[in-house]
Amino acid sequence: MDFRSDNVASAAPEIVDAVAESARTTATPYGGDPWTEGLEPAFSELFETEVKVFPVMTGTAANSIAVATLTPPWGVIYAGRAAHVENDECGAPEFMTGGAKVTGIDERFGKIVPDALEAALAAAGTGEVHWSQPACLSVTQSTEMGQIYTPDELAVLTGIARRHGLAVHMDGARFANAVAGSGLSPADLTWRAGVDALSFGATKNGALAAEAIVLFDCARAGDLAFRHKRAGQLLSKMRFVSAQLAAYIADGLWLRLAERANAQAQRLAAGLEAVPGASLAAPAEANELFVTLPRPVIDGLAEAGALFYSWPETDPATTTIRLVTRHDTTDADVDALVETAHRLASEAA
Amino acid sequence: MDFRSDNVASAAPEIVDAVAESARTTATPYGGDPWTEGLEPAFSELFETEVKVFPVMTGTAANSIAVATLTPPWGVIYAGRAAHVENDECGAPEFMTGGAKVTGIDERFGKIVPDALEAALAAAGTGEVHWSQPACLSVTQSTEMGQIYTPDELAVLTGIARRHGLAVHMDGARFANAVAGSGLSPADLTWRAGVDALSFGATKNGALAAEAIVLFDCARAGDLAFRHKRAGQLLSKMRFVSAQLAAYIADGLWLRLAERANAQAQRLAAGLEAVPGASLAAPAEANELFVTLPRPVIDGLAEAGALFYSWPETDPATTTIRLVTRHDTTDADVDALVETAHRLASEAA
Amino acid sequence: MDFRSDNVASAAPEIVDAVAESARTTATPYGGDPWTEGLEPAFSELFETEVKVFPVMTGTAANSIAVATLTPPWGVIYAGRAAHVENDECGAPEFMTGGAKVTGIDERFGKIVPDALEAALAAAGTGEVHWSQPACLSVTQSTEMGQIYTPDELAVLTGIARRHGLAVHMDGARFANAVAGSGLSPADLTWRAGVDALSFGATKNGALAAEAIVLFDCARAGDLAFRHKRAGQLLSKMRFVSAQLAAYIADGLWLRLAERANAQAQRLAAGLEAVPGASLAAPAEANELFVTLPRPVIDGLAEAGALFYSWPETDPATTTIRLVTRHDTTDADVDALVETAHRLASEAA
Amino acid sequence: MDFRSDNVASAAPEIVDAVAESARTTATPYGGDPWTEGLEPAFSELFETEVKVFPVMTGTAANSIAVATLTPPWGVIYAGRAAHVENDECGAPEFMTGGAKVTGIDERFGKIVPDALEAALAAAGTGEVHWSQPACLSVTQSTEMGQIYTPDELAVLTGIARRHGLAVHMDGARFANAVAGSGLSPADLTWRAGVDALSFGATKNGALAAEAIVLFDCARAGDLAFRHKRAGQLLSKMRFVSAQLAAYIADGLWLRLAERANAQAQRLAAGLEAVPGASLAAPAEANELFVTLPRPVIDGLAEAGALFYSWPETDPATTTIRLVTRHDTTDADVDALVETAHRLASEAA
Repeated sequence: MDFRSDNVASAAPEIVDAVAESARTTATPYGGDPWTEGLEPAFSELFETEVKVFPVMTGTAANSIAVATLTPPWGVIYAGRAAHVENDECGAPEFMTGGAKVTGIDERFGKIVPDALEAALAAAGTGEVHWSQPACLSVTQSTEMGQIYTPDELAVLTGIARRHGLAVHMDGARFANAVAGSGLSPADLTWRAGVDALSFGATKNGALAAEAIVLFDCARAGDLAFRHKRAGQLLSKMRFVSAQLAAYIADGLWLRLAERANAQAQRLAAGLEAVPGASLAAPAEANELFVTLPRPVIDGLAEAGALFYSWPETDPATTTIRLVTRHDTTDADVDALVETAHRLASEAA
Repeated sequence: MDFRSDNVASAAPEIVDAVAESARTTATPYGGDPWTEGLEPAFSELFETEVKVFPVMTGTAANSIAVATLTPPWGVIYAGRAAHVENDECGAPEFMTGGAKVTGIDERFGKIVPDALEAALAAAGTGEVHWSQPACLSVTQSTEMGQIYTPDELAVLTGIARRHGLAVHMDGARFANAVAGSGLSPADLTWRAGVDALSFGATKNGALAAEAIVLFDCARAGDLAFRHKRAGQLLSKMRFVSAQLAAYIADGLWLRLAERANAQAQRLAAGLEAVPGASLAAPAEANELFVTLPRPVIDGLAEAGALFYSWPETDPATTTIRLVTRHDTTDADVDALVETAHRLASEAA
Repeated sequence: MDFRSDNVASAAPEIVDAVAESARTTATPYGGDPWTEGLEPAFSELFETEVKVFPVMTGTAANSIAVATLTPPWGVIYAGRAAHVENDECGAPEFMTGGAKVTGIDERFGKIVPDALEAALAAAGTGEVHWSQPACLSVTQSTEMGQIYTPDELAVLTGIARRHGLAVHMDGARFANAVAGSGLSPADLTWRAGVDALSFGATKNGALAAEAIVLFDCARAGDLAFRHKRAGQLLSKMRFVSAQLAAYIADGLWLRLAERANAQAQRLAAGLEAVPGASLAAPAEANELFVTLPRPVIDGLAEAGALFYSWPETDPATTTIRLVTRHDTTDADVDALVETAHRLASEAA
Repeated sequence: MDFRSDNVASAAPEIVDAVAESARTTATPYGGDPWTEGLEPAFSELFETEVKVFPVMTGTAANSIAVATLTPPWGVIYAGRAAHVENDECGAPEFMTGGAKVTGIDERFGKIVPDALEAALAAAGTGEVHWSQPACLSVTQSTEMGQIYTPDELAVLTGIARRHGLAVHMDGARFANAVAGSGLSPADLTWRAGVDALSFGATKNGALAAEAIVLFDCARAGDLAFRHKRAGQLLSKMRFVSAQLAAYIADGLWLRLAERANAQAQRLAAGLEAVPGASLAAPAEANELFVTLPRPVIDGLAEAGALFYSWPETDPATTTIRLVTRHDTTDADVDALVETAHRLASEAA
C-alpha cells in the first residue's frame, strides 16, 4: 500500500529493455547516437510541430534550465505557490537563471488564478529598474493537486502572459497523466495553448530517470545547449536517457502507463468517497488524490502499513492526505487501502 | 514642496567640506587612507563594541552584500513584504548571494509580525534538501512606513531568528531617524537586540553618497572584503566615501540632521491631522508620514506643485499618500503643504 | 576499429543487470533506497576510511560540484592546461562556484609540473583583495595523456597545495585505469596522498551513466548536498545511478574492466611501436595511447575506417593521434589497427 | 615623491566645485537630475556619435558590467595577460557574467599580440558545446605599460574580433592619457576603430570617484541598466557622480589634466634615461614609466622616501620599477627623483 508518490515507481519493462539494448554496442558520445538523433523527429511528430529536445536526468534540471532559457537574471518567474519551481527545487531556478526571482501566485487546486496573475503583473513595475522584471509564467500540468488545465484555461493564462511580454513554461512532470486524463492531444495542451517550453516528464511514469526539455519556440534554443552542458546534464552516453524517452513515447506506451495510474486514482476515489466522514479535497482528474478523512482512519491506515503523506505536509493539524497512484499500482493495493479505511471508519463510529 | 523622498535631499555642508578637504592631497588608495582607517575605531566607539566597517556607495550594495555574507546560495532571506531587499533592489540580493530566495513576511506598518515569521519558519523544511534553507532575517529600521522597532520588538524577532539558526541583518537606510526618534543608543537598537550586520545609511540623511556595512559579528567578515571588491564597491579613492561617513558621525552631526527631518514630520503630522477628512495611516515616528486624504485634496496638492507619491504606488485607487521629510525640509514647505491642504479641504466641503 | 574515446563504450552486463534488477520494484525516492544507502559503507570499505558519496550523472557534474565545494566564488582553481575542469566543461566550474577562476598550469604528459604550480602560487597575491584567491588544486588521475601519478608525485603536489592553504580535488574519470595500472590501492592514490575530494568515474569504464563525488574531508560535506540538488543531480529514482555504482565496485568488477582496457592499450602500444616511423608521444600507462605516425599511415588508417582523434585536436598539422582503449575493445580491433598500420607504413616506404 | 599610481591623486578643484554645487539643492533621484540627464548629450558630442552612458563608481564596476553586457555566462573574454579584467578585479568579470572565462593573451608592452589572439581563437572550439565560447575582446587604452594603441593597431585587433563574432570592450581607465598622448579624437580611438563599449575613466585623472560605461553599440543597452542596478551602482543621488563626469569633460578639462600627467612622465623619462645603468623597459607614451635601474639606485630611492612599485610586483628579483605620474605630480617631485637617482648611480659607480 505505497501511495507516497509516483517517483517510487518501478520502471516499465519496455524501457528497461530499451536501455539494455542501447548498452550492447558502442555509440557516438554526447548525443551523436541514433537514439538521441531520433528524438527530435519523434517528438516533432508527437507534438505535430517542429520542436527542439534536450534530454535531462531530473525534473529539477528540466524546470530550472527551461525557465533559465526564458528568464534573464533580473527577471521574475510567476508560478503557483505550490509549484515545484517555487517550492521544491532548493532554489535551482534562482541558481540557473543567475539570480531571478520566483513569485508564488494564488492557485485553486494547483491552477493559477488568472485574476491573481493579473494583479501581480499590474503591480510588477514593468520597466522600472528597481524591480525585477516580469519574464516568465510557469504552469504545472497536471497540477500539484491532480487537476488538468483545459486548453481554454491555459489560453486565459498564456494570453495574460503574452500581453505582458512573458514567455510560458509548463512543468509537465505528470504531463502524461494530463494527456491521458483529458483525452486531448499533446499539441492542444501545449503550444496551441501558448506554451513555449515544456518539461516533459517520464521518470514518474515508468522511466528509470529521464525527462526532456521540449522547446516549441525553437528560436530560443540558442543558449539552451550551453546551459544544459554547464548544468552537467550533457551525458557522454546520452543514449541511456534517449533510449528511455524513445521507448516511452513509442507506440503510445507513455499513455498506456498513465492511463493505468489515472484509472487507479479513479478506483481509489470511488472507494474512499464512500467511507463515512470522507470527502475529496479536490476533484480527482489525474493520478493524485487529496482526501479528507477522520483522524482515526488516517492513523489506522498508517498503522496498517499504508504509505502516504499528509497535506499540506508542514501542517501538523491537517486531516487531509495525499495519495498518488502509479502505472504499477495494483488493484490489490487499492482494494486493501479502501477496505482498511472502511473498516477503520466503522470501528471509529 | 518636495516630499517625494529623502533621497532628493541636498548634502550637508559639513559633509561636502569633508570631501573637499580629503580631495586636496594624495592618499594611499583602496582604503589605506586616514579617513578610511579611522572608520573602524570611530564606529566601534559609536556602537560601544568592536565592529568591522565596509563603506559602499548605495543602499542596494550595502543590503545585498550584507545579506550575501549571511546567506548561502541555497538560503532563504526573510524580510517584510515591502522591505527593500524584497522589493526594490531588482534582485540584487538574489544576484549577490548566487541564487538565494527572498521571502516576504507579513508586516504591520513595516514591522515584521512575529507570528508570521514563526509560521514561515515552521513551514520552511529546515534540513530538507528540496527546499532553500532558512538563513537570514532582514529587518528595516526605521521601517518603510516610518515606524521604529523598540529593542523589545527587535528582541522578539531576533530571538525567533536565533532559535532557527538565522543570522540577522538590519537595513538601516534610515537608521539615523530611528536613533534620533527613539532616543536610544545605536548599540541598543542593533547588536544588543541581536543584529549581526547593519546597513548604516547616510545618503538619505545628508551625505553625498555613502553607506556603510557595519558587521557586529566580526567573525563573519572573512569573505565580505572579497564580495565588496567583486561588486565594484572598493573605490581606489575610498577616502571620498570614508570622509563622508567620518564627518557624518562626528560630533553627532548625523543625529542633528535626523532630528530635523523627524521634527518636520511631526509638524506635518500635526498640521495634516487637523485637516477635515484626513487621518494618519500609520503613527509618525521617524521622517515618513502616511496620510489618508480626500481625493480632491490629494489632486489639489499635486496641482499646487507639491511633490509626493501615492501609496501603495501600484494601487491607482488609493487615497493615501506618502510624505517624506528631510534634514533640509524647510518650515516654509511644511507650512505651505499644510495650509494648502486645509484650503483644499474647506473648498471641497 | 573505434578508438575515439572510452565514452563510446558499451555497458558491462553486470551493470545493466543491476539496473534492471533495481527497476523491478518500488523504492523510496531521493536516495532513501537500499542501493544508495549501501554506497557509503561500500565506498568507505573500498577506500579504507570513512567517506561521503554523492552519485551524479556526468563527469561535468562531478568535477564542477566537487570543486565548487572546495572553492569560494572569489577562489582560483589550479589545474593542468589540458584538464577537463579547465578545458572541457564549458565553464561549468566557473558557473557552479559562482564565478571562480580556473588557472591552467604547465603539465608534462598531463601531470602538473610542481615548479609551475609553485610559481603560480608565488605570484598569486594571497590575501590581496584585488586578486582571486588560491583555493583548490585539481589533478587528473589517470591523466589526460594516459599517465598515472605515483603517490610520491601526488604528495609533492598536494604538499605544495597544503602549504598554500589549497584543498585538493582529483578528477578520476579514469580512476579505475589508474588503480588497475598502478596496482596500488584506491586509498594510496587519494586521501593518503592528500586528496580531499574525488570525482570517481564509472561511465567511461562500463557503467551506463554514473559517477560519484567521494569526499574524504567529510567536514566539507555540509553544503555539497545542496549544490548537488541545485545542479539537478539529485534523482528521484537515485537507485538507477546507485545500482550502477554498487555493481561497479562489487567483487572488483571495476578493476577487471579497467585491466582489460589497459591491457589492450599495451597490446596496441607494442604493435604500433614496431611500425616504421612510429613513436609513442607519451609512455602508455593506462588506456590512452598517443602515437606519432607518418602522415600517410594516419590518413590510411582513417580511410580504412579506423576511428580516432588527432592530437592536439585543434592543430591541423599534427601527426600525433590519440587512441583510447576500452573494457570492450576487442583483440580483433587492436590487431586490425596494428596490421593496417604496418601495411600502410610499408606501402609508404 | 609619490609615484605609486595615479589613483593616489588629489581631485581637480573644478570637479570638487561641481560636486559641491550639485550638493546645494534637492534633485530627482536615480539619475533624473540635470547633471545625469546632460551626460548622454555631452558624451555623444564628445564622441561624435550617439552613445549611452552609465555612471559608476569604480573601474571594477565599469569593466565588469561592460563585459557582462557583451558576454554570455558561457562566453570567453580575451584580454591581455596583465589587463585589469584578467588580473586585478578579484574575479568580478566572472561574477558579473555569471561564470564566463577570462583568457589572458600574450601582449607586448600591454598591447595584445594579434597573432596570439588569432591563435587563441583558432583553438577556441567555436560552436563546440564543451568549450566556453569566444564572446568578447577587451583591450586597455592606454595600456597597463603606458603605451597607446594607434587606430590601425586597434583595427587589426577589432577586425580579428569581428571575424570571430566577438564584441569589443576597451578598458579606458587611462583613456584621457591616450587621447592626450596621441592627439587623436575620442572617436578615432574607440568606435571608429571597432570598439563597442568603453570604460571611460575619470578617477585616476582628477575625479573624486567617477567612471562611465560608454556604449557605442546602443542596441546592446537593453540589459545594462538592470546589471548596473543589481551591482549596486545606481546611486539615488546619482548627480554626485554625474557632476564629476560633466565637469571632467567640460571645456577640455580632462585633456588638460592628462596632458600634465603625460608631460611629467616625459620629463621623468628624459631625466632617468640619462642615469648610468638605466634603461626604459617600454617606450613612455602616456603617464606610466617602466625603467630598469641598478639595484642600489632602486634601494636608495626607496630609502630616500620615493614611493613606487617594482615590476612585475610578484618578482622579487626584478630591477625594473613602475613610476606613474598624475595631473598633480609636481616638477619638484620629478626633479627630486631624477636628481636622487643620478646621485645614487654615481655613488654606486
